[in-house]
Amino acid sequence: MTATTDPTPRLAAYGETARRAAADYLARTDASPYLLEPAGDYLARSGKGLRPALCLATSEAFGGSSTAALPSAAAIELLHTAMLVHDDVEDESELRRGSPTLHLRYGRASAINAGDGLAVVALGALRDNQALFGSDLAGRVWSEFELMGRRTVEGQARELGWQRDNVVDLGPEDYLDLILQKTCWYTTLLPLRVGALVGSQGRADLSALTRFGFYLGAAFQIRDDVLNLVGSTEHYGKEVAGDLREGKRTLMLLHLLAAAAPAERDRVVGLLALPQARRTSDQVADVLDLMRRHGSIEFAEEFGRGIARAAAASFEEAFGRLPDSSAKDFVRDLVPYMVRRDR
Amino acid sequence: MTATTDPTPRLAAYGETARRAAADYLARTDASPYLLEPAGDYLARSGKGLRPALCLATSEAFGGSSTAALPSAAAIELLHTAMLVHDDVEDESELRRGSPTLHLRYGRASAINAGDGLAVVALGALRDNQALFGSDLAGRVWSEFELMGRRTVEGQARELGWQRDNVVDLGPEDYLDLILQKTCWYTTLLPLRVGALVGSQGRADLSALTRFGFYLGAAFQIRDDVLNLVGSTEHYGKEVAGDLREGKRTLMLLHLLAAAAPAERDRVVGLLALPQARRTSDQVADVLDLMRRHGSIEFAEEFGRGIARAAAASFEEAFGRLPDSSAKDFVRDLVPYMVRRDR
Repeated sequence: MTATTDPTPRLAAYGETARRAAADYLARTDASPYLLEPAGDYLARSGKGLRPALCLATSEAFGGSSTAALPSAAAIELLHTAMLVHDDVEDESELRRGSPTLHLRYGRASAINAGDGLAVVALGALRDNQALFGSDLAGRVWSEFELMGRRTVEGQARELGWQRDNVVDLGPEDYLDLILQKTCWYTTLLPLRVGALVGSQGRADLSALTRFGFYLGAAFQIRDDVLNLVGSTEHYGKEVAGDLREGKRTLMLLHLLAAAAPAERDRVVGLLALPQARRTSDQVADVLDLMRRHGSIEFAEEFGRGIARAAAASFEEAFGRLPDSSAKDFVRDLVPYMVRRDR
Repeated sequence: MTATTDPTPRLAAYGETARRAAADYLARTDASPYLLEPAGDYLARSGKGLRPALCLATSEAFGGSSTAALPSAAAIELLHTAMLVHDDVEDESELRRGSPTLHLRYGRASAINAGDGLAVVALGALRDNQALFGSDLAGRVWSEFELMGRRTVEGQARELGWQRDNVVDLGPEDYLDLILQKTCWYTTLLPLRVGALVGSQGRADLSALTRFGFYLGAAFQIRDDVLNLVGSTEHYGKEVAGDLREGKRTLMLLHLLAAAAPAERDRVVGLLALPQARRTSDQVADVLDLMRRHGSIEFAEEFGRGIARAAAASFEEAFGRLPDSSAKDFVRDLVPYMVRRDR
């Protein structure tokens, strides 16, 4: 096994390539500034670029050129941006990448519409796959996007439903099943599967990739949930403990509900039963304090490290037989990065 | 020319066929009730079914079977529903088809996500076109949907931008250009163009259809705007004068801004300058009264009748050379229906 190196410089380079392509697709529509300004806003804030980077590198590792995967990577970045915009409206979030969310800047209506617009531009980018590899493979790539879309809205619906119905009898397996749908499909499975399809010209076996993608995406989401509690706004770019205020069913929350004494558990469930706007900062701080005292954050971090070990093992299964390449090394190095990152 | 008959029974039948197909596509996803319930809610409220009916009938008139256009008609109905859901959140509307809007029933987050889910299911339905007519024609149909998507979000962005910036120096030509984008593409142009492509197996000339679709869609939207002011909630199913409260730039509003005395105009512009939540019912009633006194509603109705005459003339250009059929008669009869309907 190659020694682990820091993937962040290559991540930044891949991300920049994809972001530029995404911005080009947006600019090439004949839209007015009324659409282009809100739709282009998040793209201009530098995100991690993780999803398109994973797609571009996987395509290279499977023998393709990074240009072959560029329309798909741009579409992934555009759709990711569309989902961030809608997510921020749905969660009433205030900060994204260190600046006010789109609906705070342009109003809710323009934000929802900008999200729709970004999704339309993403679908337009996928049309370029026809010319690159013909109808059959382009159709398979397209089906991956459609499947991802179905999984993501289902995961989002379930998470919102749990919050609305105040469902609290949930275990880690429910959490993992939720994030498989709401996070892994669009964050890791789609980029990996599309990258492999494009790079191998349709010959790659997707099942080993799917296992790897699940573990990699789960490691990512668990770290994201932890960062939401312990991260600094400066690095993380979102409001700290926002997930708690929103009542998100994270591993930490599920651990606390299982570990807390009955009176403490009643306080937690009581907070979750309130409408979001009526949850006070004191109550949020109280639950955060309970999580600290019951070791819920350590539990989630340890859980995340276990998932990352499974990701490292399944990486070998998915990528092991491919020729060595810097792209392959980059994907391998993303595993420890997922549990270590501070943004 | 055939005598005009009432198209509403056939409209209901076509609409029911498409709605059933749309509901089937939704049910065939393996989604949970958390997604299916909000996503299926508007589909179960009986809408007019105008858009899919126009697609199915045009396909028949151009020589195709109505089954050939069914996936496209279902996708049109699903996308229309997705847009209604997002539109209602964007406009903070309260009533849709006589019942509370989706965000009032399920919360804003679930409504936005249900709209996204409906759009994903619509795109999935279009995959069936591959098996029906092969990649080339299926690709052309797909491009029509993508073009429609771009036009619609652009129109929506422009309308919201005019409201946000309180743009008032607009004439009827600006209004027509706006509704070409925000309404005509998805209401008439897409159904007509896709129906003709499918029915003629790609041979139809789309330019005459595009002119007809523009006039037909404009007649529809002008009537919609008038109904918003003079319709009964019972028939129309939305809150009366909601457009005025939202500050929509309708023909009536543009006419009033041009016809009002300076002091009256200042009152209108003053209302529009307020944030929507601060516009009072008295102010809305005052502007509605000014419209009545200045003949703004009659102006829009007369304008709509002129547009309908242009639609009737361009119908002959677009459909005249096709063999007579009940489907062709149905499309012709939609022209007078557009300016006469009360829902």
